[in-house]
Amino acid sequence: MTDLSTALSLAEVRLTPVLIADPPLLNTHGVHQPYTPRLIVEVVTADGITGVGETYGDAKYLALARELAAALPGRRVDGLNGLHALAARIPGSGAPESGVDVGGQRGVQTADKLRLSVVSGFEVACLDALGKALGLPVHALLGGKVRDAVEYSAYLFYRWAEHPGGAGQRDDWGAALDPAGVVEQARRFVRDYGFGSFKLKGGVFPPDEEIAAIRALAAAFPGRPLRLDPNGAWSVATSLYVARELGGVLEYLEDPTLGTAQMAEVAAATDVPLATNMCVTTFPEIPEAFAKGAVQVVLSDHHYWGGLLRTRELAAICRTFGVGLSMHSNTHTGISLAAMTHVAATVSDLDNACDSHYPWQTEDVITRRLPFEGGRIEVSDAPGLGVELDRERLEFLHRRWLDDDGTHRDRDDVAAMRVADPDWVMPAVPRW
Amino acid sequence: MTDLSTALSLAEVRLTPVLIADPPLLNTHGVHQPYTPRLIVEVVTADGITGVGETYGDAKYLALARELAAALPGRRVDGLNGLHALAARIPGSGAPESGVDVGGQRGVQTADKLRLSVVSGFEVACLDALGKALGLPVHALLGGKVRDAVEYSAYLFYRWAEHPGGAGQRDDWGAALDPAGVVEQARRFVRDYGFGSFKLKGGVFPPDEEIAAIRALAAAFPGRPLRLDPNGAWSVATSLYVARELGGVLEYLEDPTLGTAQMAEVAAATDVPLATNMCVTTFPEIPEAFAKGAVQVVLSDHHYWGGLLRTRELAAICRTFGVGLSMHSNTHTGISLAAMTHVAATVSDLDNACDSHYPWQTEDVITRRLPFEGGRIEVSDAPGLGVELDRERLEFLHRRWLDDDGTHRDRDDVAAMRVADPDWVMPAVPRW
Ligand SMILES: [Mg+2]
Ligand SMILES: [Mg+2]
Repeated sequence: MTDLSTALSLAEVRLTPVLIADPPLLNTHGVHQPYTPRLIVEVVTADGITGVGETYGDAKYLALARELAAALPGRRVDGLNGLHALAARIPGSGAPESGVDVGGQRGVQTADKLRLSVVSGFEVACLDALGKALGLPVHALLGGKVRDAVEYSAYLFYRWAEHPGGAGQRDDWGAALDPAGVVEQARRFVRDYGFGSFKLKGGVFPPDEEIAAIRALAAAFPGRPLRLDPNGAWSVATSLYVARELGGVLEYLEDPTLGTAQMAEVAAATDVPLATNMCVTTFPEIPEAFAKGAVQVVLSDHHYWGGLLRTRELAAICRTFGVGLSMHSNTHTGISLAAMTHVAATVSDLDNACDSHYPWQTEDVITRRLPFEGGRIEVSDAPGLGVELDRERLEFLHRRWLDDDGTHRDRDDVAAMRVADPDWVMPAVPRW
Repeated sequence: MTDLSTALSLAEVRLTPVLIADPPLLNTHGVHQPYTPRLIVEVVTADGITGVGETYGDAKYLALARELAAALPGRRVDGLNGLHALAARIPGSGAPESGVDVGGQRGVQTADKLRLSVVSGFEVACLDALGKALGLPVHALLGGKVRDAVEYSAYLFYRWAEHPGGAGQRDDWGAALDPAGVVEQARRFVRDYGFGSFKLKGGVFPPDEEIAAIRALAAAFPGRPLRLDPNGAWSVATSLYVARELGGVLEYLEDPTLGTAQMAEVAAATDVPLATNMCVTTFPEIPEAFAKGAVQVVLSDHHYWGGLLRTRELAAICRTFGVGLSMHSNTHTGISLAAMTHVAATVSDLDNACDSHYPWQTEDVITRRLPFEGGRIEVSDAPGLGVELDRERLEFLHRRWLDDDGTHRDRDDVAAMRVADPDWVMPAVPRW
């Protein structure tokens, strides 16, 4: 080993956009595309140690990531706090500003959110490299794990058996479009992964159908925590109707309606806790939402919040204000799952199982997929994240991105739905 | 080097209570004693690496520290998050509870505060050992410095020339009991250390005298940030009177009055920002105080808040809620000054110079005192804290503690004042 300063100095940054397969999972905007873009970030130290991270791969993220990557060489992988200031100096990524369409279901769109999500991929890559250089797992770089395994919940989706026209990858899950289909999906999740709690992505069918699905889950898995997330598709009145109907069986209701004002109105009128990864997704959104009691659980997502250190800061804020914490997950590879698991392991009061899309992502860029056992992922004590890039797969999935005609380079669930239904437009909210 | 797991395993913890000299500095409770107790914490890894930390040395702190020290061997120095849970399991140190007299001027007294202060000494020692084992400075273990030097303010005190009866150590500062004396003291601080801002410990003389002292400072150092801290000695009316009189020259007024309700009343009626290290000194005190706008600047003190990681969490909360951050300091050695400097270097929006008693502490337990240059302390890039124990001095100061008849084993400014004035009792508040 050369001296530490060399070992920690950043010599090179590699960005590899990929397209990974995604099943036809339904949400209120439409349906997941056959392939979704992700960006794999590699930082390489002067000593040849490589750290990996992952973030959104849509064009806007990629453009900012390229600028940040160009600014990094010569800096050190332990300069994590400095990453934010560095990224903020890139033109157009500075102050929070509304109206920047960062895609997806992320509430109000701002340049801030775009920048933080990009930084998160680099921060995780730096933590991975730092851990490898020091011989420490990422959790130890965050103050150390307080648990040996992190609990995840089964992430249930209404879904089709296949993408329109048989596009993309085919799987053997079949369709799930009614209570029986949802329960069947849940049973397989329990059998294969041992999950002990369930989240259903809602906002797809009229509320009574989704209420029936949750009741069917409650009957099939008595006493297990259940969640329903319509991504803000409902009015305040509908939200309260669902809360009344499901009051006895829901662990929490996730983003029933859009915005702090409406969420606060719902929260004030029901005992069902409200969770969010849309109403509160950045630090500036916290004070008003907490003051109004709009949310009882924040679903942190280290991509949204700007990395693992910031996720720990969010956890401290939630702890201080008596707001619960859980974790959110979007379509991602094992790199981000490992990162989630490390940070979740260090947070003392993580009382709710974390969300993960991971079982739906059968394509990965790491050599050994992270296994769920009893609904949990063991916290790795190997240096860094404890994952290894599968360069052949990475190249294959990058080739797919290169060969794509542009259809999948920005995730667009509305456009994907339009393939099946030419008249489909982004539904107006409240949808119900 | 043996393997990392051995290198990071805690083999031994050494606790060394010491008495360090303190000048006759006046405050609203009384006067500093000739000697004040501090506890030096050493953690030794199986590899023989020693990390040092420091906390309060009063009997209650020492008793809890001994229990925590006994529980540590076999754990790892990178298990920082786990320290809190471990300490909380020690009987009597658990849930927050009022009525535990932890001494000093720390607002409401709770078992929580006692425990957090004890943990802070161990956390810093573990960070020092971890940094030494890895070859990284402590700031790098906190995400990396965002500045190369940390600014401190001159901490001015009304003081006597010597302790009653000539007890303790004598210095050449002379008395400072009026505006001219305060300005003279400030000039020497500027000459010797280059400080660019000034804090006067008030609550000692009637408010008009202290107003005159601040005005004299403003005249002598035009445009420099000035602070006045009477430690809650004033009523709301007096606080507002002082704020009106000094509105144009104060950077902030520190704890003019006691408790969140009164602080909020003052804050609502003046534009002078209020700072605190009494009203908000633990996380549970934050929500109400922030909601009421009771404080505009929190003076973090890593002893109060439970260590350097928690101090960073406090900084994140303040940033999120638009509350300023500065740092508080009590009588301490160079170990705690180094710890403060490392954590302060990692916090992005530390807009106010930090307090430090350090210039008043001429006795130390480290081989090379940390120098102020231009009012700043350079952030060390050496492994760990970047300080080295002077074992001879440590032994000497510990011997003083051993030989003490009990007079100085608990800091007691009221008792110290009683030596000069047999009728002195803890002043009722508001004093003015
Ligand atoms: Mg959601
Ligand atoms: Mg104070």
